Amino acid sequence: MNCSIARALDVLGESWTLLILRDVLSGLRRYDQLEASLGIATNVLAARLKRLTELGLLERRAYRERPRRYEYVATERARDLAPVLIGLLQWGDKHLAGAAGPPRTLVHNGCGRPATTELVCVECREPIAQHGGRLIGPLRAKAV
Amino acid sequence: MNCSIARALDVLGESWTLLILRDVLSGLRRYDQLEASLGIATNVLAARLKRLTELGLLERRAYRERPRRYEYVATERARDLAPVLIGLLQWGDKHLAGAAGPPRTLVHNGCGRPATTELVCVECREPIAQHGGRLIGPLRAKAV
Repeated sequence: MNCSIARALDVLGESWTLLILRDVLSGLRRYDQLEASLGIATNVLAARLKRLTELGLLERRAYRERPRRYEYVATERARDLAPVLIGLLQWGDKHLAGAAGPPRTLVHNGCGRPATTELVCVECREPIAQHGGRLIGPLRAKAV
Repeated sequence: MNCSIARALDVLGESWTLLILRDVLSGLRRYDQLEASLGIATNVLAARLKRLTELGLLERRAYRERPRRYEYVATERARDLAPVLIGLLQWGDKHLAGAAGPPRTLVHNGCGRPATTELVCVECREPIAQHGGRLIGPLRAKAV
């Protein structure tokens, strides 16, 4: 699949869930659009959309009455996965793109430029850096 | 598993790969440490470590000679997945933690405070926001 998110997930062992969310968050909402974009078996897509709706990640809304047709809208819970998808995209761009370079460009709606993103600490606004190969600091078990 | 990354991955359908990287990036490097942390079958762990090494995400280094013992060190390719793991952690914290709250606190080595992170555009330094339910802007197919 010509997408760095797909490549990253292929390496990481992920399944269809995040790819469906990638498409819905990129503006595809209808069953036939998703089916065409994903190249996924129709029964698998139907089962995943049902599951994502049950998990509160998608909402099914009728957009036509005769015949009745539905579209799938991302909930806040799904939109909050955007940083994960963007992280996977940038990782795939950097490490899996090969000589042809990244297959797609993400555009920041805020400034209209090709978006490269960076994770910053909300407290000090500094970029999150790795120190000594660790995540960003200790994962401290919470005192109960 | 008492970890928001694990919870997020459980929902997202992910397998062991990212959990092993979570542990290595949090400071666990030795086989028995990983086995104890993950509660994973030993043959599955061995196979995953081999695969992660082949993929260039981990490097195996001897840390003792008699008997010879190895530890696994994260490469740059693995460290670059930190934003994905942090994204999964924060998503799990927000959406899957339940009444007890987040099980572990991530500490920012830079400022020493509990780290909440935010994704910013490298160009304009503004937080990446979702507009109209889309990712952060169109995914434009690259002109070849």
